Formats: sequence, structure tokens, C-alpha cells
Amino acid sequence: MAHGIILFGHGARDARWKAPFERLEALLKHAHPGPVSLAFLELMDPDLPAAVDSQVAQGCERITVIPVFFGQGGHLRRDLPEIVEQCRSSHPQVDIRCTGAAGEDEGVLAAIIDFCLDQTRD
Amino acid sequence: MAHGIILFGHGARDARWKAPFERLEALLKHAHPGPVSLAFLELMDPDLPAAVDSQVAQGCERITVIPVFFGQGGHLRRDLPEIVEQCRSSHPQVDIRCTGAAGEDEGVLAAIIDFCLDQTRD
Repeated sequence: MAHGIILFGHGARDARWKAPFERLEALLKHAHPGPVSLAFLELMDPDLPAAVDSQVAQGCERITVIPVFFGQGGHLRRDLPEIVEQCRSSHPQVDIRCTGAAGEDEGVLAAIIDFCLDQTRD
Repeated sequence: MAHGIILFGHGARDARWKAPFERLEALLKHAHPGPVSLAFLELMDPDLPAAVDSQVAQGCERITVIPVFFGQGGHLRRDLPEIVEQCRSSHPQVDIRCTGAAGEDEGVLAAIIDFCLDQTRD
């Protein structure tokens, strides 16, 4: 069964903002056997419904949406569940799941702490 | 010499958005011997100048500002350097440094990949 991952970011006007998301996508493509793609809430393409359509067209029967956000604010509590619901209505045969924010994961927080300590060494 | 760290986030309307920043602050307080505090670009208090004023009042002679952002867009390329410059003008005796975005660090990206792979296991 093909299982896709979509890394979901906020989006920004400055195209350079996307760079770490593209690095994440490339790293994850090496580690995950199914399709991996990016999607954005606003200001950048594709949006989540387009990314889901594309993974369904590639044969995915399960898609996991991972919000690459630090905090869980209105975008993740209100906007994202609505968009995911819309994707499920368009593809009722596909198992579309959504995780918590990557930036709330303990391992990610620990890596940020390491970064902070590295940055304060002389 | 007292060396402060300020974790700088975007800010959001939803107070719950701040939770992972508060966890980061608490973890870093255990690991770093000097003052550690939060500051926000918008929608949340304190702003960066207020956080810097407070650390200077606590005796910091060096302050490292760490942007807890994923991408480096207009906020970090334009807004933050201006605010940091304003802080330096207010406290010319203090060494105020600013790092790259935490979310662009390779160790942080690797931790996000681990989170993604964990989330896609059955």
C-alpha cells in the first residue's frame, strides 16, 4: 500500500523561506519509501488539497499530513482541520491522517536546545 | 560575565500557541547558566526590546537572540535586524548577537525527520 507524507508549512512571501522545507522534503524522500511532498497554508503553492490530489493520483491509499509549525495556534486548530476534512470529502477512499505540530515534539525541542547551547559557546 | 539567551518567536493570537516556546524556555533554563527569556515579533508580549532591557537590567553583558522560526523569510531578513539594531542603540555597552533560524539547523531538521518517520509507523 502506498503511503504518502505531506509536510505542511505556513508559506511566506519570500521564496527563500521555503529552503528548509525543501531540505526536509529531500531528506525524507531518502528515508520514506512512499511519495513525499510539500504543501502550504497560504502565499505558496501547492495548497494541501492540490498536494493530496497529486498523491492520490500517484496511488496513495494513506496520506499523513505533518504540520511543520512550532506552536499550535489558530492555523492548526481551526484552518487545518477544515482543509483536511475537505480533502477527505474529495477522496473518501483514502485514509488521510494529521499529526501534531513537529515543533511540539520532545525530540525536536531537544535538538533546538542543542542548537541554542552551540550558538552560545565562544 | 552574564550571558543571556532570548528565544524569539513570531507570536500568535491563540495563547496556546506559546506552549512549546515555554517548554523550550524551561528546558534551556536548566542547561544555560545565564538568564533565558522569550520575546515575540507580534501579538504576544514581551517584544524583543523589552526582553533585552530586562536582561540588561539583570546584568547581562552579552545577549544571544535565537529566532525560533522554520524558514528565514521577511520577518528574519528585514524586521528582526532592524529591531536588533534598535536594541544595540539603546544598549551600546552590551554585545547583542543574533543567530540563524533554529529551524534551519541540520540537527533540528534531523529531529523533524525522526518525528515524521515515527508518525508514519503503524
